[in-house]
Amino acid sequence: MLQKFKEHINKNFPFLKDKKLLIAISGGVDSVVLTHLFNSIKFAEISLAHCNFKLREVESDKDEDFINNLAKETNKPIFTISFETTIYAKENKISTQIAARELRYNWFQELVKKHHFNYVLTAHHSDDNLETFLINLTRGSGLDGFTGIPKKNGNIVRTLLPFSRDEILKYATKNNIVWREDASNASTKYVRNKIRHQVVPFLKEINPSLLETFAKSLDNLEESQQIIKDRIQDVSSTIIKKDSSSTLETTKFTISEINKLSNPKAYLYQLLKDYNFTEWNDIYNLLSAQSGKQVFSKTHRLLKDREFLILSGRDFSTALEKTFEIHRNQSAITNPIPLVLEDIVEKSEENKETIYIDKDLLKYPLLVRKWKNGDYLYPTGMQGKKKLSKYFKDEKFSLLEKENTWLLCTVDNEIIWVINHRQDRRFSPTKTTKNHLKITSI
Amino acid sequence: MLQKFKEHINKNFPFLKDKKLLIAISGGVDSVVLTHLFNSIKFAEISLAHCNFKLREVESDKDEDFINNLAKETNKPIFTISFETTIYAKENKISTQIAARELRYNWFQELVKKHHFNYVLTAHHSDDNLETFLINLTRGSGLDGFTGIPKKNGNIVRTLLPFSRDEILKYATKNNIVWREDASNASTKYVRNKIRHQVVPFLKEINPSLLETFAKSLDNLEESQQIIKDRIQDVSSTIIKKDSSSTLETTKFTISEINKLSNPKAYLYQLLKDYNFTEWNDIYNLLSAQSGKQVFSKTHRLLKDREFLILSGRDFSTALEKTFEIHRNQSAITNPIPLVLEDIVEKSEENKETIYIDKDLLKYPLLVRKWKNGDYLYPTGMQGKKKLSKYFKDEKFSLLEKENTWLLCTVDNEIIWVINHRQDRRFSPTKTTKNHLKITSI
Repeated sequence: MLQKFKEHINKNFPFLKDKKLLIAISGGVDSVVLTHLFNSIKFAEISLAHCNFKLREVESDKDEDFINNLAKETNKPIFTISFETTIYAKENKISTQIAARELRYNWFQELVKKHHFNYVLTAHHSDDNLETFLINLTRGSGLDGFTGIPKKNGNIVRTLLPFSRDEILKYATKNNIVWREDASNASTKYVRNKIRHQVVPFLKEINPSLLETFAKSLDNLEESQQIIKDRIQDVSSTIIKKDSSSTLETTKFTISEINKLSNPKAYLYQLLKDYNFTEWNDIYNLLSAQSGKQVFSKTHRLLKDREFLILSGRDFSTALEKTFEIHRNQSAITNPIPLVLEDIVEKSEENKETIYIDKDLLKYPLLVRKWKNGDYLYPTGMQGKKKLSKYFKDEKFSLLEKENTWLLCTVDNEIIWVINHRQDRRFSPTKTTKNHLKITSI
Repeated sequence: MLQKFKEHINKNFPFLKDKKLLIAISGGVDSVVLTHLFNSIKFAEISLAHCNFKLREVESDKDEDFINNLAKETNKPIFTISFETTIYAKENKISTQIAARELRYNWFQELVKKHHFNYVLTAHHSDDNLETFLINLTRGSGLDGFTGIPKKNGNIVRTLLPFSRDEILKYATKNNIVWREDASNASTKYVRNKIRHQVVPFLKEINPSLLETFAKSLDNLEESQQIIKDRIQDVSSTIIKKDSSSTLETTKFTISEINKLSNPKAYLYQLLKDYNFTEWNDIYNLLSAQSGKQVFSKTHRLLKDREFLILSGRDFSTALEKTFEIHRNQSAITNPIPLVLEDIVEKSEENKETIYIDKDLLKYPLLVRKWKNGDYLYPTGMQGKKKLSKYFKDEKFSLLEKENTWLLCTVDNEIIWVINHRQDRRFSPTKTTKNHLKITSI
């Protein structure tokens, strides 16, 4: 196996040569053999990282001891960490398995940053790949779930994917390698174990070269995925409208263009699949929903806004609730929007970006915030007061423009300025004004 | 189940209403229940078709008797046929299973033509679908093999796909339906049985709603396939060069355009997958092969011809070996190319489509055939003789043009005319010619 591994690395992973690699090591045969192989081929500089998930108490601690010894014997740098996986899972309302994965990969990325590793190596092999395929089959999936564990995903690299569990075990035995039965996530292994011991053996009876055959099937499916990617890239140029007016990172999809496609739902899925949405029917229904409807994922929001679907980070909408303060003696702020405040004697030219107010009418601190229900405006050049929502409507603001608009208010939440749009006349200078405040949005 | 079936038919198969349907009936519970359901909903006019594959002798004959009785009891037209499946399989070097399928579907299509059926119905259900998926997994496949049995494929319609084997069995028991255990292709059922009894039950233990989940996965995969189809249609307009010059049905793919794509191999597969090719590496290698290389499938040929890959029916190349005769007193032929032969007194204007020859120099029957190695030409307007291959090269004939060119020869295989291109001077009229033969290609 060593020779095959060497050739495999030279052919498919030449970019690992002489790099700083971090091997994720559980203590199970796969990761111990991976470490042994990299030690033998002397291809790059390796360090070890071990997570103690505290899921089986004594056994988890014994795993950690084992890894520490291995590192000492082989003279490798070792990083270890303990996680309260069960607590983390409960707090985040996720399964122990997903919790362990999140904790592990997040920590690896911290180590990468702190110690300048080039890549993280995990020991997934071809049986893992087939098992994952079958698990995804039982859970329901799409092409993404059937194309296997990626060889390379960012800085995570999996060099054992063409090797079977059998090959790895044989190599370990032949080389007198000691390992520990992987106990770390045994409690979450019910489904995988069933697949491994009760399903895969029968499939291998039907086709003894199942793993090779399966690898070819995965290649075929990956090729299909490449074609889909090309098509999505192709239609994106028509569908996605670059929106330079927005101050925040958003993507605008033109609904009429989506509806022209052979299967709008299928395309919507492909366009949005990287944003953690789960309610695809709701998303599909947005196409014909009322303006203002929105669907959230744990990281993103999709908003129907007239003839567009607008994708933004989820923070975007929570930002609506934030308020920023300007104190009496501040002459400028940069966040959330750059403003310059100048005490001047006399009013001069005003425009959308520059207003003048009677400083003595203000109550500090001034507030900069987004609009909310119940806001009123006494617009300059107009009698009486107006609901801000009505003002937005009359001025034909889109939902996104409303959300992108900042208000300057007094501490009592009276609006002074719909920034860059309209001043409130309650604070406009009059003939008797002594102290003018000039405010410019830059 | 009857109610669910009724709704399913009304919703998804309204086009079957009042049509002439042929139900493929083995005598197994699935096809007997399908017949019973169609009898109950009185939605269309049904007839039965039963194949006796003679694979289990007495049992096969008992199946046939059973179906004949069922047809009599329910007063339905019945068609039966017996096949020598094993002999057919041996003769065609295919498995018994594939032989049975070919024989069956070919016969169905004959019945459709002869008796004007609108559709043929088969009784495939959701367990069949999952089993086929898993069988394809063991054999190796691509997206096509993972998208399930099609609901409709030409005039073959499968109305039971959303129903499980369990539902069908329950319906049969509840309605006292009698059926025969399907013995017709038991000998080929090794793999399917293993999947059905040893693999699927464990997957259903993991997820009791496996069949519903699986149906959704199939929908997802079908949507992916739709996007691929769109992309292929899109690139085809650039890649495929319509070739009006050819007299035979061919498709020309521009190699430089294929090479511009992100994954030429993946695209070649999609462009050619309907033509029964199996040696995809050979096909991929054609892109960079020498002009003249070709790959055959059982129905088609792909030929590298300079900057093109040329797809044609396989008959196209076997046609090269055929020879057609023209007898002394024939005045015209239409096959393989229309020619008119006239005895005239004197030579008049000649051109590429019309030649004159000295009739007394000919030996009958004349032959019309494609070129072969060793052919020589004594071109008019030139001294000496020339290898025909050299002539083609000098005149910059493409491989396809060579194959499209017919030769008129004497019975001794001396070339008289490279039809529509160049006459051989050995048979040109001279001053002493008494009997002119005028030959025109029309």
